[in-house]
Amino acid sequence: AKLWGGRFEEPVTPAVEKFSQSVSYDQRLWRQDLKGSRAHASMLALQGLITEKDEAAILEGLDRISDRIESGEFQWRADREDVHMNVEAALIDLIGEPGRKLHTARSRNDQVVTDLRLWVRDAIEQIVDKIVQLQAALIRLAVENREVVVPGYTHLQRAQPLLLPHLLMAYVEQFERDQGRLKDCAERLNYCPLGACALAGTGLPIDRFATSDSLGFKAPLRNSVDAVSDRDFVLEVLSANSIIAVHLSRLAEEWVLWATEEFGFITPSDAVSTGSSIMPQKKNPDPMELVRGKSARVVGDLTTVLVLCKGLPLAYNRDLQEDKEPLFDSVETILGMLEVTREFAQNITFNVERLSKSLPAGHLDATTLADYLVYKGMPFRSAHEVVGHAVALAVAKKVELKGLSLEEFGAINPIFEEDVYSFLGVENSISKFRSYGSTGADCVAEQLKFWMDKLAGKL
Amino acid sequence: AKLWGGRFEEPVTPAVEKFSQSVSYDQRLWRQDLKGSRAHASMLALQGLITEKDEAAILEGLDRISDRIESGEFQWRADREDVHMNVEAALIDLIGEPGRKLHTARSRNDQVVTDLRLWVRDAIEQIVDKIVQLQAALIRLAVENREVVVPGYTHLQRAQPLLLPHLLMAYVEQFERDQGRLKDCAERLNYCPLGACALAGTGLPIDRFATSDSLGFKAPLRNSVDAVSDRDFVLEVLSANSIIAVHLSRLAEEWVLWATEEFGFITPSDAVSTGSSIMPQKKNPDPMELVRGKSARVVGDLTTVLVLCKGLPLAYNRDLQEDKEPLFDSVETILGMLEVTREFAQNITFNVERLSKSLPAGHLDATTLADYLVYKGMPFRSAHEVVGHAVALAVAKKVELKGLSLEEFGAINPIFEEDVYSFLGVENSISKFRSYGSTGADCVAEQLKFWMDKLAGKL
Amino acid sequence: AKLWGGRFEEPVTPAVEKFSQSVSYDQRLWRQDLKGSRAHASMLALQGLITEKDEAAILEGLDRISDRIESGEFQWRADREDVHMNVEAALIDLIGEPGRKLHTARSRNDQVVTDLRLWVRDAIEQIVDKIVQLQAALIRLAVENREVVVPGYTHLQRAQPLLLPHLLMAYVEQFERDQGRLKDCAERLNYCPLGACALAGTGLPIDRFATSDSLGFKAPLRNSVDAVSDRDFVLEVLSANSIIAVHLSRLAEEWVLWATEEFGFITPSDAVSTGSSIMPQKKNPDPMELVRGKSARVVGDLTTVLVLCKGLPLAYNRDLQEDKEPLFDSVETILGMLEVTREFAQNITFNVERLSKSLPAGHLDATTLADYLVYKGMPFRSAHEVVGHAVALAVAKKVELKGLSLEEFGAINPIFEEDVYSFLGVENSISKFRSYGSTGADCVAEQLKFWMDKLAGKL
Amino acid sequence: AKLWGGRFEEPVTPAVEKFSQSVSYDQRLWRQDLKGSRAHASMLALQGLITEKDEAAILEGLDRISDRIESGEFQWRADREDVHMNVEAALIDLIGEPGRKLHTARSRNDQVVTDLRLWVRDAIEQIVDKIVQLQAALIRLAVENREVVVPGYTHLQRAQPLLLPHLLMAYVEQFERDQGRLKDCAERLNYCPLGACALAGTGLPIDRFATSDSLGFKAPLRNSVDAVSDRDFVLEVLSANSIIAVHLSRLAEEWVLWATEEFGFITPSDAVSTGSSIMPQKKNPDPMELVRGKSARVVGDLTTVLVLCKGLPLAYNRDLQEDKEPLFDSVETILGMLEVTREFAQNITFNVERLSKSLPAGHLDATTLADYLVYKGMPFRSAHEVVGHAVALAVAKKVELKGLSLEEFGAINPIFEEDVYSFLGVENSISKFRSYGSTGADCVAEQLKFWMDKLAGKL
Repeated sequence: AKLWGGRFEEPVTPAVEKFSQSVSYDQRLWRQDLKGSRAHASMLALQGLITEKDEAAILEGLDRISDRIESGEFQWRADREDVHMNVEAALIDLIGEPGRKLHTARSRNDQVVTDLRLWVRDAIEQIVDKIVQLQAALIRLAVENREVVVPGYTHLQRAQPLLLPHLLMAYVEQFERDQGRLKDCAERLNYCPLGACALAGTGLPIDRFATSDSLGFKAPLRNSVDAVSDRDFVLEVLSANSIIAVHLSRLAEEWVLWATEEFGFITPSDAVSTGSSIMPQKKNPDPMELVRGKSARVVGDLTTVLVLCKGLPLAYNRDLQEDKEPLFDSVETILGMLEVTREFAQNITFNVERLSKSLPAGHLDATTLADYLVYKGMPFRSAHEVVGHAVALAVAKKVELKGLSLEEFGAINPIFEEDVYSFLGVENSISKFRSYGSTGADCVAEQLKFWMDKLAGKL
Repeated sequence: AKLWGGRFEEPVTPAVEKFSQSVSYDQRLWRQDLKGSRAHASMLALQGLITEKDEAAILEGLDRISDRIESGEFQWRADREDVHMNVEAALIDLIGEPGRKLHTARSRNDQVVTDLRLWVRDAIEQIVDKIVQLQAALIRLAVENREVVVPGYTHLQRAQPLLLPHLLMAYVEQFERDQGRLKDCAERLNYCPLGACALAGTGLPIDRFATSDSLGFKAPLRNSVDAVSDRDFVLEVLSANSIIAVHLSRLAEEWVLWATEEFGFITPSDAVSTGSSIMPQKKNPDPMELVRGKSARVVGDLTTVLVLCKGLPLAYNRDLQEDKEPLFDSVETILGMLEVTREFAQNITFNVERLSKSLPAGHLDATTLADYLVYKGMPFRSAHEVVGHAVALAVAKKVELKGLSLEEFGAINPIFEEDVYSFLGVENSISKFRSYGSTGADCVAEQLKFWMDKLAGKL
Repeated sequence: AKLWGGRFEEPVTPAVEKFSQSVSYDQRLWRQDLKGSRAHASMLALQGLITEKDEAAILEGLDRISDRIESGEFQWRADREDVHMNVEAALIDLIGEPGRKLHTARSRNDQVVTDLRLWVRDAIEQIVDKIVQLQAALIRLAVENREVVVPGYTHLQRAQPLLLPHLLMAYVEQFERDQGRLKDCAERLNYCPLGACALAGTGLPIDRFATSDSLGFKAPLRNSVDAVSDRDFVLEVLSANSIIAVHLSRLAEEWVLWATEEFGFITPSDAVSTGSSIMPQKKNPDPMELVRGKSARVVGDLTTVLVLCKGLPLAYNRDLQEDKEPLFDSVETILGMLEVTREFAQNITFNVERLSKSLPAGHLDATTLADYLVYKGMPFRSAHEVVGHAVALAVAKKVELKGLSLEEFGAINPIFEEDVYSFLGVENSISKFRSYGSTGADCVAEQLKFWMDKLAGKL
Repeated sequence: AKLWGGRFEEPVTPAVEKFSQSVSYDQRLWRQDLKGSRAHASMLALQGLITEKDEAAILEGLDRISDRIESGEFQWRADREDVHMNVEAALIDLIGEPGRKLHTARSRNDQVVTDLRLWVRDAIEQIVDKIVQLQAALIRLAVENREVVVPGYTHLQRAQPLLLPHLLMAYVEQFERDQGRLKDCAERLNYCPLGACALAGTGLPIDRFATSDSLGFKAPLRNSVDAVSDRDFVLEVLSANSIIAVHLSRLAEEWVLWATEEFGFITPSDAVSTGSSIMPQKKNPDPMELVRGKSARVVGDLTTVLVLCKGLPLAYNRDLQEDKEPLFDSVETILGMLEVTREFAQNITFNVERLSKSLPAGHLDATTLADYLVYKGMPFRSAHEVVGHAVALAVAKKVELKGLSLEEFGAINPIFEEDVYSFLGVENSISKFRSYGSTGADCVAEQLKFWMDKLAGKL
């Protein structure tokens, strides 16, 4: 019989039991659940709501349950619905009467959000840690390829030359903000719902500050109805994960492109490549395709919980049970994506020679040429037009801009002088950059130093 | 070593292996995979690409694998990546050389979509079957409560009276269209990708019509690139499921409302109710809350696959591996939702007396009164206004419309006569309806008969 | 005062009026609304609910309103809330008393879905037409580049050679199924809600079959509650559009890639390219980037309506007003995407020479080589491995497979003979394909003929 | 001709122009665009890149443009694509040569994100302000109904009694965290992209710190590639809005329920209600239905931008143009939702008498009774069971718990004594609560004071 079965005469049907159980997935909260129960039991004893003997029996019983779960002996039972009831019922089986006192001044409604907040708090720490590791891997890659110049793209068309570290650090910046979002979320969720009970609090003389403290929360949540009914902390971490997923999907897309025959910027090692069941020559950058692909489920998980919470009246509704699987899936997926991206970063080689040979294509120096004209006093908008004509000519002649003769330049506009050639060619072009945050060598070196210092312990 | 490992010198890292394996979930395709392999092997033999002895060995080997999987003895291995490689490698382990011939003129790219189309085809049959069962349960409920009148709502405000069967049949109509969508999808997907190989087809003399026939497909897909790269059939079934989920969420919301203390239209039996861990009096309609809640993940699953497929160039990309979990989850969830809703329908009692007592509230007869005025020759728009004033008066006096005296009606407008009272009161009001599809008794009886005939075998 | 204002004493606040008006966007339904009103008025006259004189006045009034809207003179008023009330009130302003009779046996609830179903029916026709035009453009492109061979990709790595028409026709197939989905949707929605009134039908002697017929519907919807409360036809067309959007996003991605410096397969003309405000050399394939980007909003629109409908109890709720903007946006966006993609297809040139030069890279013939070994009697799985080693050697030696000497082949496996060279090289490789649906020249020609016949009128 | 048209020979097609223009909606950024241009021009002058005379001409020209836009005279032109080109071209039309210098060391890529960050910064301020106003309205409502007791619900079943202010403050807490999220977002986005130019920065001697300062940013963004390619700040504000939307949808659902005939807790005034076109008695809480409904589009907008950004390689892609409409729509919708919810809060009356009469139903005191048994020394789990039996008896007898005699209690368990009646009945029950954050009178008073102090200026 269910522990809540006092007024019931009939058990639920097997289909309903199967449909509504959550223990198959919420058992993953067992550490948090035991932690919360320990804190709760000790508070109850302190407040005289149970005896110290009861407390000791409960704590010891919880330890035994912990051991059994850890060792795989614990029997999770679907008829006991969820992790909470499984633990409580097992405790009663083990220690009898004192176990029947644990749920004093507590409901599954406050218990589950306590567990969940503890779990998310830990999860955020893990994600942040994996992000830092990925940043470190990118910075290492940048350091190892400090001098490599790559074409920078807009619209996937060649735009201007970039120092590879500059490009890699763009991702490091994104991941830094991702950490910020997660940490803000961790701050915001770090309040304790325990003691909110079903929704209204309790008339029993509990001490919510005590349990909050012992669980490492900043304070108890101020409002018991809010405590059991809102899931904004789940939505917030799922949103932060979705943004991380978008960032990783973009990096993945870029690396998939770079690994093509056509771009050929990188060669992933065999350790991060897979083959085809039919085509013997294939060596595919699958991990990054999967990173790109798995970004989709992280977005899907967020959608699920948004749809879930939409339009639910207060306070707790059973719908909210469905917050857990998308949460777990999102966190697990993000951790995997971060780890595998880091491994990929550690397993690619830049094809420096090929890259370097490809740089003349695409007139990456055209904007530098326009800047030249600005230096000569021409308004930028006119300079843009003049260079446009020079590009048209170069395209027609199938040469680089530096392949145009001074006469040809002069025919377009008399302003051009011999010194124009010191602005042409990718090497000259990239050597000109100097604005803060630009791809100029000094700027990039400075940024690289910034990140090396910041990630010092991780490199 | 991987079966595709010819050109590789190094294995993938453990993290990549774990991240990219799919066998933990795509093993659920094993029946379809074996079926496809049997058809393929027989076709290869027919075409002389393998000997009949090879074919016999392969078929016998596949039977043994089938037995092992069925009995739980089969060892699924993550290092063998997916269901396809697990089966093929196990076959080679079992029967040696002939097993190495099975993958002739086949790629995992066409194999997986063949499996998946077979799986979806079956899944649709199951969903349609569950829908029909739910329709039948609703019709039974309608028949059992044939005479019950309920308030009809718009904006959740009382609008006009409805015969309960009329309201229940609104859902039956929705579910009928849901079936239509699924069946259209089943028709559209029922073409065979096998033989498309990696993406380009093959130079080996295979017979795609033979495999298509033996797998029950209408024909082979016309274009091999399309065959391996498009997942529109997955998106289509996920869309159809999302619409079903929306329908079920609405029914669930309605029943959750009806089960409240405040509405009190229905009492669910203990068999479909659950209690609270803290509040001893609680009896909650959890199954329907979960049906409402689980609609969210069905929508999330669709979102996932839409995001997944967006922007992928042709042909196969590894991202597509991620289509399976949302597909499986959506189908499983919908099946559970349909089943549990049916069980709930079979476990509710209408509180007829209470319902009947509540009908006078909310002026459900006001529109009938306006129709009365139309019969008297007043333009509807004026009738609406006149009745509006009558309602205002009734509200002020805290009476029903039929509680107004003829003098009071007359003071509002002289058109009212004694016969007005035959249009007032819920009984009179509902007896007036007669338009096709309306809540009039005859119309509803006719509709009920339509559905009872249609679902004859299922009731 | 509002036309429904009989029982109200106070107007809504300006903020509420602004927030809840829909006329700013639902005025786009005016043609459908007038059409529905005409059919309704004629039916009312036929049934004797209004006089023929009333009918004539109404029809003439509606004509005048139609003219005013068409000419831009009509004054849409937010205080009249929506298109329906704007038209009805204007009619009353114009023709007086008879105008007050038009809303007899009708509610905005059935009126709006009647309008919407008519609108969607038209929209689907337009979308189908644009799809056919795009298919025709792709087929023309295929015909014009009938002999062009391109690398086929999986995982964006070179896989096997493809005839360009084969690849283009993969999209034509997708768009064909897209049409199928839309047409199924059009069939399913083509039932008439008019006469369902608020939710319960009416007691007035209307003829729903008459209005259904005159509006070109197949029949009246069977159930009045269903008629006013379900929006599955909106969800279905939004789902179909989302799948189209995914297809277009993939084509867009492919063409963006093909237009890069690195792939260089196509050159879009100036007519479909745009430049940069700063970089004078840039020529970007913006239209296809926008097609890819706009796929996102089509998905977002679907999400909106799914979230919207989730958990709404029957029958009509005001939330449903929010179905229109996403519907309109989705349809308009898809029409634009289809049109611009067609224009792009008509404005690209294949760089045949460059393509042809690039074909030797990536060992596109490796699978054909494995087939060679199968012909020689080697099991495919062994052939795959042997070719894997040959590829590894070719990579090491930086040659094509056909650049390996017979001795080198022989050292890998003695089975190789002189005839191996007739299977090597992209020309030889592609000439081998012959399975149904493959990239073999005859198969492709047959398919091309199929589409040219089917699209005959459109080419 | 386009300002970027130097290398182009042909204009884009009309369809492409229409499809790709953004000025129809991004003109809403004009204030931000002018502000950015002013700061940029002054910096250029300071750095000697333009003369002071140029600067003066530009600033004066921008002022004139500002006036024209403000007064509605400005001619927005689709052929000038976007707000940026419209302003720049108009400037050149107005002031000639100096206008051609404004775009020096600037690209639309950095310009648009500068505008957008400024816009979002303002938008967040407005949203926060509207949230505070709504909080204030809720607190006023709480103060005005300080003593009202309502049934608290879980699973929409009656659970425990709540002081109305306690319930209302649950929403105030949610909105407080919503503000936190927005403010964190505002902090995180408050860095200046200007000077990142196309993607790589520039070789011209600009001072990014100067523009950053003068635009009120904390600092320039560190990495130019990151600056132009990431849209995480858009995603973050859309996520925060989605959570707000979920909160509002829940409040809306609750108020829609409360306004039903069946719950009857509140009566909205006519000023926030609307009627039916057909049913004269109807008075619907439309504003809250629309708030609930519009939550959907806020979620849809987030989905759109997540799908949009997924898988885009660096740096800028034209897809990103599509970030604006969902952003604008989300912000506008949320502002409207907040405002209308506040108005609704100011226009509802609690039906105190009816509420009070309804409290005996649903055994809201059952948990208090279990606490009584805990005080008597019974383990809670046993107390729960005992009370379960008492409830079953009360249900069978159709009485409240306090309607059971001491004998009846005694028959269930001998532990009950006369003092049990001081724990029964809603008044007794609610008077017992005292845990922090509970619905106890003192706790609620304290919380109410907290919010009244915090919102002092706004009440």
